[in-house]
Amino acid sequence: MELLARPARLSCADADFERAFKARLHWSADTDAAIEQRVADILADVQSRGDAAVLEYTARFDGLQAASLAELEITQDELKAAFDSLPEVQRHALQTAAARVRSYHEAQKKASGESWSYRDADGSLLGQKVTPLDRVGIYVPGGKAAYPSSVLMNAVPAHVAGVREIIMVVPTPKGERNALVLAAAHVAGVSRAFTIGGAQAVAALAYGTATVPAVDKITGPGNAYVAAAKRRVFGTVGIDMIAGPSEILVLADGSTPPDWVAMDLFSQAEHDELAQSILLCPDAAYIEAVQQAIDRLLPEMPRAEIIARSLNGRGALILTRSMEEACEISNRIAPEHLEISSNDPHRWEPLLRHAGAIFLGAFTSESLGDYCAGPNHVLPTSGTARFSSPLGVYDFQKRSSIIEVSEQGAQSLGGIAATLAYGEGLQAHARAAEMRLKP
Amino acid sequence: MELLARPARLSCADADFERAFKARLHWSADTDAAIEQRVADILADVQSRGDAAVLEYTARFDGLQAASLAELEITQDELKAAFDSLPEVQRHALQTAAARVRSYHEAQKKASGESWSYRDADGSLLGQKVTPLDRVGIYVPGGKAAYPSSVLMNAVPAHVAGVREIIMVVPTPKGERNALVLAAAHVAGVSRAFTIGGAQAVAALAYGTATVPAVDKITGPGNAYVAAAKRRVFGTVGIDMIAGPSEILVLADGSTPPDWVAMDLFSQAEHDELAQSILLCPDAAYIEAVQQAIDRLLPEMPRAEIIARSLNGRGALILTRSMEEACEISNRIAPEHLEISSNDPHRWEPLLRHAGAIFLGAFTSESLGDYCAGPNHVLPTSGTARFSSPLGVYDFQKRSSIIEVSEQGAQSLGGIAATLAYGEGLQAHARAAEMRLKP
Repeated sequence: MELLARPARLSCADADFERAFKARLHWSADTDAAIEQRVADILADVQSRGDAAVLEYTARFDGLQAASLAELEITQDELKAAFDSLPEVQRHALQTAAARVRSYHEAQKKASGESWSYRDADGSLLGQKVTPLDRVGIYVPGGKAAYPSSVLMNAVPAHVAGVREIIMVVPTPKGERNALVLAAAHVAGVSRAFTIGGAQAVAALAYGTATVPAVDKITGPGNAYVAAAKRRVFGTVGIDMIAGPSEILVLADGSTPPDWVAMDLFSQAEHDELAQSILLCPDAAYIEAVQQAIDRLLPEMPRAEIIARSLNGRGALILTRSMEEACEISNRIAPEHLEISSNDPHRWEPLLRHAGAIFLGAFTSESLGDYCAGPNHVLPTSGTARFSSPLGVYDFQKRSSIIEVSEQGAQSLGGIAATLAYGEGLQAHARAAEMRLKP
Repeated sequence: MELLARPARLSCADADFERAFKARLHWSADTDAAIEQRVADILADVQSRGDAAVLEYTARFDGLQAASLAELEITQDELKAAFDSLPEVQRHALQTAAARVRSYHEAQKKASGESWSYRDADGSLLGQKVTPLDRVGIYVPGGKAAYPSSVLMNAVPAHVAGVREIIMVVPTPKGERNALVLAAAHVAGVSRAFTIGGAQAVAALAYGTATVPAVDKITGPGNAYVAAAKRRVFGTVGIDMIAGPSEILVLADGSTPPDWVAMDLFSQAEHDELAQSILLCPDAAYIEAVQQAIDRLLPEMPRAEIIARSLNGRGALILTRSMEEACEISNRIAPEHLEISSNDPHRWEPLLRHAGAIFLGAFTSESLGDYCAGPNHVLPTSGTARFSSPLGVYDFQKRSSIIEVSEQGAQSLGGIAATLAYGEGLQAHARAAEMRLKP
């Protein structure tokens, strides 16, 4: 049977648009009670038995036996050997990508991640000290979805932030290691690496064991068990966001070759069948041309089946009445990836308030951003771009307020603080301020 | 019976120190299954029945009847009237505090919250666009712990960030309104206010009802129901951190009057019996002097009973072998509030890596920072300063990566992206990059 990819065709002018649009966007992260319970048990077990528990779960879930957890550590020499084993073209690609990602995150640190302070009229010092986290853990999935680019995108910002120890965990089912993943760890400046995964690896990083040091924050993607474990250890350690399915929204004015747009929609859809690809365009003929490009290009794709399932189940080609309306709909979606496929992208960019990353112009395919343009590819999904941001250097830093009130400042502030403190019924607060007043 | 406040006396030189230190620090946020279930039910009910459900819960829990939710909205005129009703000294204190908090957060926005970009050698544009959240909700507790200063500390950074709509919710049990809280809302630039609270108010903000608009993020402190509700709606909306008990750590070299330090310890302890006050000092005689000051000052305090319970249950006076050791212990604790009560505070400040806010020198009482120095008083508790930051303008902004790859950039990046994408088995990603290459 012929494979067809037919995204839903919606039109903003249709009376039924609102309902159809909401139905297409709908997605909810189901939490599975059985997974939650399993994860809670694993976390408690690793917290109490440490290395021994991690070893048992690694043997059971990954089919990987070891006499001690130390045996599951990958040495720096092994990471380097993995890098050296790669063909030159891959070594070059990894290094170039890492260098560009590093440059971008260094610019980010300079723009928004430095300490600052000022003195007020009383000579009091006010500011913020920005410091790196001491030690972070990076979770890297093993098996079929092993992405060396994720290693770069998580480890490089931590490294740029100045994190002293970056601990990577990566499951290696039956001991099978992915050379590209290890090579990426070498390039990205990972300090230590362990071939462990699942909830047991998250627990080891959060609580520490005799062999695995406790970290301050855990980032990186993982399956339902990893996500549940990260949610549960949040508070003991920091975590990054829990990602939903990946999404792309293409805002097109019809000036980009339809094949390019079709392939960009594919590149999101090929991740998995829950991934979402949406085209917004005011030109009905162009939408038709993109559908034809989809039909023509699909058979060439090795992952055609996943692409078709994703586009049929969650994709949409939406006819808008104008580019302005397309921008407004994009703001309602707050997409993870937003391509402005227009020959005048800077006209539309200011209208777009919510998106993880904005790709301007026909030459900026999302895949260039995924790998090597420089910005991070870990982005807010499922509409959370309304209130959250790409992974960045700031996720590996924290801020401490700095306050040094001068003697004179204590005089001008003391009465104000005391008035407000008495108003709140907190007399010790008031007295502490009043004690600093000169008699 | 005479009320005594005797914090635990520990010494770093003792063989038993590690155990005693850990026992004193131990605190864990218990989650109550009954509360969790009640909150889940309330959230689901508000999500499906909207205004009607909120009205019912407000009548039941707050003893406040109304025919419609619109009746529970406090108008801008009412906020202003509350402000006008205050004595001049309170109006002045609120306005001065708000102005200082605003100045500080404006400096913060300038230092770390502006958009930035650069062009690389290929002419590609890379950067980040920083934008305010559209609409945020601020939870303000009612009843006995009604803190106008919290209104300022939550609303002002949102206002400075450029948030267009700031929706405040504050329960008013039996209809009793706190004039200082409403006045603070007037001063801080709150857009709309409703006299609702509890999990039902969090649900109304997260999902929206016919009367209460849905927001993008909810910040502000609350009781166990509010905390549980915020945790549950996280993902649908952003939330700030869930605070644990408040803490102060005073690092003293013995140069500050012992009374001042005793009162600073009280000002934390008076919040509630779980609050934690710790003194670290290398001078045994000074520690003894602080204990004597505690004994002398306690009877004067209206909240003496809470202070005693807090200091006896959770307080500690710790003798260290040096100021350096005191700094190391402080880093292990990662306190919410950290006073460097020294005549040479800049000597010790660089050694202190983790703290919500650092107060330098004898004149900088924590209470000045709580109310009016300028920095935010919403700070990470329970050791989370290892990985998180004070509430700030950045909590009301989000970032979008900006990428505009030039035609030339697409040529140099295309091959690299394609190599890495093929390495990950994502052929559509690779093809999307290759399509942009010139033949």
